[in-house]
Amino acid sequence: MKIKQWIEENKTEAIEFLQKLVQEDSVQGNEEGVQMLVKEHLEKIGLETDYWIPEDDAFLNHPYFCSTRKDFSRSPNLVGIWRGTGGGKSIVLNGHIDVVPPGDLNQWEAEPYSGHIEDGKMYGRGVTDMKGGNLALLLAVQCLKDLGVTLKGDVLFHSVIEEESGGAGTLAAILRGYTADAALVPEPTNMKIFPKQQGSIWFRLKINGLSAHGGTRYEGVSSIEKSIPVIQAIQKLERERNKRVEDPLYRNTPIPLPINIGKIEGGSWPSSVPDEVLIEGRIGVGPQETLEEVKAEFEQAIAYIEDQWLQKHPVQVEWFGARWLPGSIEVEHPLMGILQKHYKDVVGKEPEIEASPWGTDGGLLTQVGKTPSIVFGPGVTSYAHYPNEYIELQKVFQTAEIFTHVIYEWCEGEGL
Amino acid sequence: MKIKQWIEENKTEAIEFLQKLVQEDSVQGNEEGVQMLVKEHLEKIGLETDYWIPEDDAFLNHPYFCSTRKDFSRSPNLVGIWRGTGGGKSIVLNGHIDVVPPGDLNQWEAEPYSGHIEDGKMYGRGVTDMKGGNLALLLAVQCLKDLGVTLKGDVLFHSVIEEESGGAGTLAAILRGYTADAALVPEPTNMKIFPKQQGSIWFRLKINGLSAHGGTRYEGVSSIEKSIPVIQAIQKLERERNKRVEDPLYRNTPIPLPINIGKIEGGSWPSSVPDEVLIEGRIGVGPQETLEEVKAEFEQAIAYIEDQWLQKHPVQVEWFGARWLPGSIEVEHPLMGILQKHYKDVVGKEPEIEASPWGTDGGLLTQVGKTPSIVFGPGVTSYAHYPNEYIELQKVFQTAEIFTHVIYEWCEGEGL
Repeated sequence: MKIKQWIEENKTEAIEFLQKLVQEDSVQGNEEGVQMLVKEHLEKIGLETDYWIPEDDAFLNHPYFCSTRKDFSRSPNLVGIWRGTGGGKSIVLNGHIDVVPPGDLNQWEAEPYSGHIEDGKMYGRGVTDMKGGNLALLLAVQCLKDLGVTLKGDVLFHSVIEEESGGAGTLAAILRGYTADAALVPEPTNMKIFPKQQGSIWFRLKINGLSAHGGTRYEGVSSIEKSIPVIQAIQKLERERNKRVEDPLYRNTPIPLPINIGKIEGGSWPSSVPDEVLIEGRIGVGPQETLEEVKAEFEQAIAYIEDQWLQKHPVQVEWFGARWLPGSIEVEHPLMGILQKHYKDVVGKEPEIEASPWGTDGGLLTQVGKTPSIVFGPGVTSYAHYPNEYIELQKVFQTAEIFTHVIYEWCEGEGL
Repeated sequence: MKIKQWIEENKTEAIEFLQKLVQEDSVQGNEEGVQMLVKEHLEKIGLETDYWIPEDDAFLNHPYFCSTRKDFSRSPNLVGIWRGTGGGKSIVLNGHIDVVPPGDLNQWEAEPYSGHIEDGKMYGRGVTDMKGGNLALLLAVQCLKDLGVTLKGDVLFHSVIEEESGGAGTLAAILRGYTADAALVPEPTNMKIFPKQQGSIWFRLKINGLSAHGGTRYEGVSSIEKSIPVIQAIQKLERERNKRVEDPLYRNTPIPLPINIGKIEGGSWPSSVPDEVLIEGRIGVGPQETLEEVKAEFEQAIAYIEDQWLQKHPVQVEWFGARWLPGSIEVEHPLMGILQKHYKDVVGKEPEIEASPWGTDGGLLTQVGKTPSIVFGPGVTSYAHYPNEYIELQKVFQTAEIFTHVIYEWCEGEGL
């Protein structure tokens, strides 16, 4: 009851702090202001901090380094450290601090970085993905500190940059040694528990045709027409890949491993036969798959399209831009049991356990940091990346309460 | 024999003049220099000239005015006039002086406006489309003048701007009264005779989807996937329209009335479900069709696509940009007979008679100017609008010889 009461007493202050976090626009390249806020906060609640600009060669040249930039001078990474007394299990609490751009401002009912509250919901870019989740972690740590608890295991709070662009911030934290026995990643899951997370990679296809005047189009080969069998081959591959998925965690997901065609562009003039089409998309990578397996299967499907022209003029496949590693933790892992138990205690019902249809930094933590990760957070999945993003404050506090119990038990706390 | 001899004696001078015409870059908005050259030439060979900037309201507001601009101040139109002695049939000799831009310079083996000669071919942007054809007309007029011929009918030489962008120059000439009993339009036909010319209109389709994250793409509707039935409906419409074509002039044309999809663009992010696709294309309009009939048939085909989503979220159809009216002359028209006869005399074999797969200013002449038009010229069809455009000079002179005889006979000449 001490925990519930502490949270109740600290709600007003917590809401103000979340508003400040949201009001700091922290899109890629602009994370300095918000990181300073978090750093001050971590120090105020009694954690050591490590605040640094990721720039060393081991980081920049790492095989899983993936970013559109090499210069992070205005994008510090931050870790808050609470050393345990020793002999206990450690935990990473991982939250990214970067947000995606607000997009079309006309679709926002209020200013995107307002942080205003209406009917128990706070609005603003990044509030659900994932500053609200970060707050839940911070509240849990602060609560344990305030209640005078000691922990045997270490707590490492990652406030990382760049998750939205490929995870370079979490990679930098891992390479700096901030790994642990397990991790919690409160991305917006609607408080569903995701022990498995889908990874993803981006592809770009170039489909070639032969130009001609539109009036004598029979003299050319339309790359737009030739895109149809390519799109159909992708649809067929998606069906085949999903037939193989038997994991019960996906039973409620209509397409567990989607292949999304996100962009198409080809031709330049209405009355010319288009000689090139570019298609860009994203293929989901199952929790147990490797990126390499998935790439090979995709490339093979594209290479074997039954079309004489395409056989002679093969579609070119390029893997580009962002990629997220899949991640997973065993469903029977002790941290899963602890989380489910406290969820049930706080919320009053069994949690929903699923596999996530998108990647998170949990993939890097699992595969590079050898830190099995659970994704579980208070945000509203469907509003992440969308206008009028919001979070229900009540869920932030429920999640904070759950996290407090989980950390206390996992890290073998004493004093409550 | 006088005509053949005159042309033989004037070849060198004619080639030099054609070089000058080609060396004057006359893309849209830059026609002034070349028009001054043509004006001087017309006056030198003894024609009156009318040189004006098209700008009056009747022109700018005409229903068939179609241009990307309203300001023609650097784009004068020009007509050369040779009044007949009266009582004879008049003729329009129509040649556009504008050229399309050279495009990718790397694909040109020489500077695009070089006008250099190699193996009897002159090279340069616009030499085939259609300054070489214009020269053939000018030589015919000059020859008749030099040989002291008198004609009963008027000869009106159109040196018009803007054919490549919708025909505003020919429209301006028609509205200024420069129409006649028939017309010759020496566009590049490889010396085939085209009594019928296809028109064309440009369409833009907007296909709507519903955005979602690529990882949960089943929550959205992909506008790229929904483009497939739209493209297939266009392909089906093309097949149906071409099944109806029975005109023997199209017997050698694989697709007499093509519908070309020239451009596609949709979506903005690999991992988002695309909510909009734009498709642009060109639909051929048969010589006997009206633009309105073709638009209606196309719109209906798009409206009746069997797809529940598209039925509820109809594809939007827009008609935009350039359009060319179809044109035709009766195959039995007396000018057709005269042209065929002199073709056979000069070339030594029967001419090929076909219908053109593209539009020309002959459409405006036929439909707005009530001047039935034949398209017949010395240029190389396949090099129009392409790098390394060229013309065979021998064909220019053959065409000039044919034109001289045709004009003499049609306009009831005396003195040879």
